Amino acid sequence: MKTTLTESYTETAEFLKSHDNYYILIHVAPDGDAMGSGFGLCRVLREMGKNANVLCSDPFPKRYEYLYDWYEPGRFTPKTVVAVDLADKKLFGKELTAYEEYVDMCIDHHVSNTGYAKQTVLDPGASAACEVLYEILTAGNIPLDDISAKCIYTGIATDTGCFKFENTTPRCHVIVSELMSFDIPYAPINRQLFDIKSKARLTIEQQVLGSAETYLDDKCAIIAVTHKMMSETGLSKEEFEGLASLPMQIEGVVVGVTIKEKEEGKFKISMRSTEEADVSAICGKLGGGGHARAAGCSVEGTLEQVKMKALSAVAPALGFDLWLS
Amino acid sequence: MKTTLTESYTETAEFLKSHDNYYILIHVAPDGDAMGSGFGLCRVLREMGKNANVLCSDPFPKRYEYLYDWYEPGRFTPKTVVAVDLADKKLFGKELTAYEEYVDMCIDHHVSNTGYAKQTVLDPGASAACEVLYEILTAGNIPLDDISAKCIYTGIATDTGCFKFENTTPRCHVIVSELMSFDIPYAPINRQLFDIKSKARLTIEQQVLGSAETYLDDKCAIIAVTHKMMSETGLSKEEFEGLASLPMQIEGVVVGVTIKEKEEGKFKISMRSTEEADVSAICGKLGGGGHARAAGCSVEGTLEQVKMKALSAVAPALGFDLWLS
Repeated sequence: MKTTLTESYTETAEFLKSHDNYYILIHVAPDGDAMGSGFGLCRVLREMGKNANVLCSDPFPKRYEYLYDWYEPGRFTPKTVVAVDLADKKLFGKELTAYEEYVDMCIDHHVSNTGYAKQTVLDPGASAACEVLYEILTAGNIPLDDISAKCIYTGIATDTGCFKFENTTPRCHVIVSELMSFDIPYAPINRQLFDIKSKARLTIEQQVLGSAETYLDDKCAIIAVTHKMMSETGLSKEEFEGLASLPMQIEGVVVGVTIKEKEEGKFKISMRSTEEADVSAICGKLGGGGHARAAGCSVEGTLEQVKMKALSAVAPALGFDLWLS
Repeated sequence: MKTTLTESYTETAEFLKSHDNYYILIHVAPDGDAMGSGFGLCRVLREMGKNANVLCSDPFPKRYEYLYDWYEPGRFTPKTVVAVDLADKKLFGKELTAYEEYVDMCIDHHVSNTGYAKQTVLDPGASAACEVLYEILTAGNIPLDDISAKCIYTGIATDTGCFKFENTTPRCHVIVSELMSFDIPYAPINRQLFDIKSKARLTIEQQVLGSAETYLDDKCAIIAVTHKMMSETGLSKEEFEGLASLPMQIEGVVVGVTIKEKEEGKFKISMRSTEEADVSAICGKLGGGGHARAAGCSVEGTLEQVKMKALSAVAPALGFDLWLS
């Protein structure tokens, strides 16, 4: 883009004001930022008297129900397609592939955004897509209400680990202080997002952490979640979300690797890291991507083969030139 | 006080500028806010060319070493005694009792502050003593540096659970955004404070949570840490800190009770709560006090008796008029 970010914020706000009949697309396996930016934008547009629906290939997660308990999809013919927090067509999922060529506007913060949309407003320095959305709305004097403020708060809080991670900027804190002029039940929200666990979830965390393996001078921890473990606990698929941060709890770990079995011979790897390693680059070597501190990829093979592939990619990043088991 | 808070911030800043040879007192079992406000103030005074030492009845915890790795106590005759985050003489501990009658200034945020000092600057709406200290320093244009900024950040972050708890205000977020103009390694700090655990600590957490008992329609969870458990794990006393938040992780829990054996027949109870219960009032009934969401008390008896005393105090607060096991 030739325009500066601030200019494009104002232009994007004008775009939002001058269009109607919105389909808002969010990525598969939606997290707090996808849900927050999707429903935050939807709410704001509806408050402006416009038609807007949120579309996702996966069901909206129950843990974020407080973001959409007011929402019913409307019946209208879509005219404008906006994608939020959606970096790549690969993340559209089955239900949204039909819209791949018709995205008018993408609002995002992923440096890896592939530029598939006709227009893209991207700030890779923003902690969350919700932060970019907030800048657009304030640049255009588009009013928030308690619900859209709660949505935007949730996106920023979840993507920064509640203001814990490196991507938390002074601007993040200023935005949140402004959002707090709305009635956001942030303490119960944060408790639900970051603290509370079902007894079944507590059990699986204990199991998974108890079986964590450490490699490369204990700087890399690997946990694995297999179909067998999942079926034995009786937990829902959703309750297995967010395990990826667990290996980072172990003292001394620089790269945490979580391997989850998707189907026979197919695994999803999630990596997290301290400032000492860039997991976006590491996952890139395995055909994936993401952020420097949080990234992922899909790998095929047996569980042991997948572990070896992950370790071979992690080793050089931790200064182990040649990695041999 | 007849003065407004803002006036007293300026006055306190003038007090700090016009005195010298400071002993700064912090409470027993110092937490992040005690350590942050103690060493933050000490650093600022030393940068002003003054003598200042931090005094505590307990050793400074190793987990906060990054706040005092620059510090050596100076040799001088004390002339000015300032207590920070210290609500009550009871929390002076053995080594500091000698100063009980000589505290010139107390900087605090506990509504339960007993007013033992000659002058008290108290904002019960502040998230942390560090927040009050920050207001004083900025009111008096007293400059911070990277180290004092790191100390103040730590106090606010720890007392708000990294901006998660109800006591997090818009002002908190604004202050933190200002502090971030200094070089604070907040991501590694937060990881160390909130995420990383030794393998031994992970084990004890699993043990303690695994043995949690729930009462009163599962709204009250009790965990107990006995001498026996502590000696079996081989963990240091310090590694047992911060367990009090564990019972709040269990879904549906409104009051979390952690009972820790201090010596034969003597127990320390820590309570945490959601907005639905005021544990300051509950612990008050047992001779203790604190904040609405985090409070404590000391109770004598056998472990079973102590549990019963705790439950009898909690039950009415949760709407159980008469509590019978």
